[in-house]
Amino acid sequence: MMDALYWEDMEVGQIVTSRPQVMTRERIVAFAAEFDPQPQHLDEEAARGSVFGELVASGWHTASVTMRLQLESTMGRFPGGSLGAQVDTLAWRRPVRPGDELRARVEVLAKRPSASRPDRGLLTLKTTTLNQRDETVQEMTASILAPRRPA
Amino acid sequence: MMDALYWEDMEVGQIVTSRPQVMTRERIVAFAAEFDPQPQHLDEEAARGSVFGELVASGWHTASVTMRLQLESTMGRFPGGSLGAQVDTLAWRRPVRPGDELRARVEVLAKRPSASRPDRGLLTLKTTTLNQRDETVQEMTASILAPRRPA
Repeated sequence: MMDALYWEDMEVGQIVTSRPQVMTRERIVAFAAEFDPQPQHLDEEAARGSVFGELVASGWHTASVTMRLQLESTMGRFPGGSLGAQVDTLAWRRPVRPGDELRARVEVLAKRPSASRPDRGLLTLKTTTLNQRDETVQEMTASILAPRRPA
Repeated sequence: MMDALYWEDMEVGQIVTSRPQVMTRERIVAFAAEFDPQPQHLDEEAARGSVFGELVASGWHTASVTMRLQLESTMGRFPGGSLGAQVDTLAWRRPVRPGDELRARVEVLAKRPSASRPDRGLLTLKTTTLNQRDETVQEMTASILAPRRPA
C-alpha cells in the first residue's frame, strides 16, 4: 500500500517508473480475440501473412497494460480516483512480442489548478512504455484531473 | 464475411456505423480488475465513494470495444490488416454504465497515398462511440495505413 498522492505532490519534470510486466502469449491472444481479432494478434501462422509477419500484441493491449502500470505508480494513489480527461497523443512505436517485459515511465509535463473545480488540479502526463531493451514501444500524452489536498 | 476493402474504396466524408455491443457488468469489472482497478470500475459500493459516484466502465475498455466494432465495419476488412499509426486525440465524453449498448460511427476525414510505401495509403478516421440514446461517450481521431488495391 503506497501513500496517497495529491495534485500538490506532483512536480513538473518529476519522473516515476513502474514495475515491469511480462506480456504473455496467452494474454496477447486472449485480448486480441475479445477486442482486436486481426491476424497479426491471433496466432503465429496467421501473423506470418500480416503486415507484421509475426505475432504481436494489439496496441490497445499495450495501452491497457500501460494504464495498469501507470495507476500503480501514480494515478491509483489519488484518493477518490482520477478523471481521465483527454489523451492528446497515443502512438505505437515498436511491436510488442510474447515475452516482452513492459514498464511505464510517467513524466509530469505541466500542471495548473482547475478553473471550474477548486478541489481538482490538471496534470499533463507523458507516459512512455519501454520494453526490456529500454526501447520505446508506446508514447502517450494525456491530461487528467487529480484531487487537491484538503485544506 | 464481408468483402475486402482497400484504401481506394474509402471516400472522404464516408460514414460507416457498426453493430451495437452491450457493455455487461461482468465484462466491465473483469476488464477493470486486469487493467484499471480504480474504485469506480470495480464494484458499486466502492464506486459510490469515487469521483463518479457509480460503477462505470474504464475508458480503456470503451476504447478497446470501439476497436472491435471499428474493425468489423472497416479496418478488419483490409487484406493483411491495418497498421495503426497514431491516435491524434482520444477523449471520453460521458460515463459508460452496465447495460449500455455502444456503437462505433467511423467517418473518413482525409486520405492520401503513403510517401514511403507505394502499397499503402494513409486514412484519417474520426470514430465516435455512441450509446443507446445516441449520446457520444468517446471521440477519437486516428491515422492508419491501409493496403492499396493491387494493380
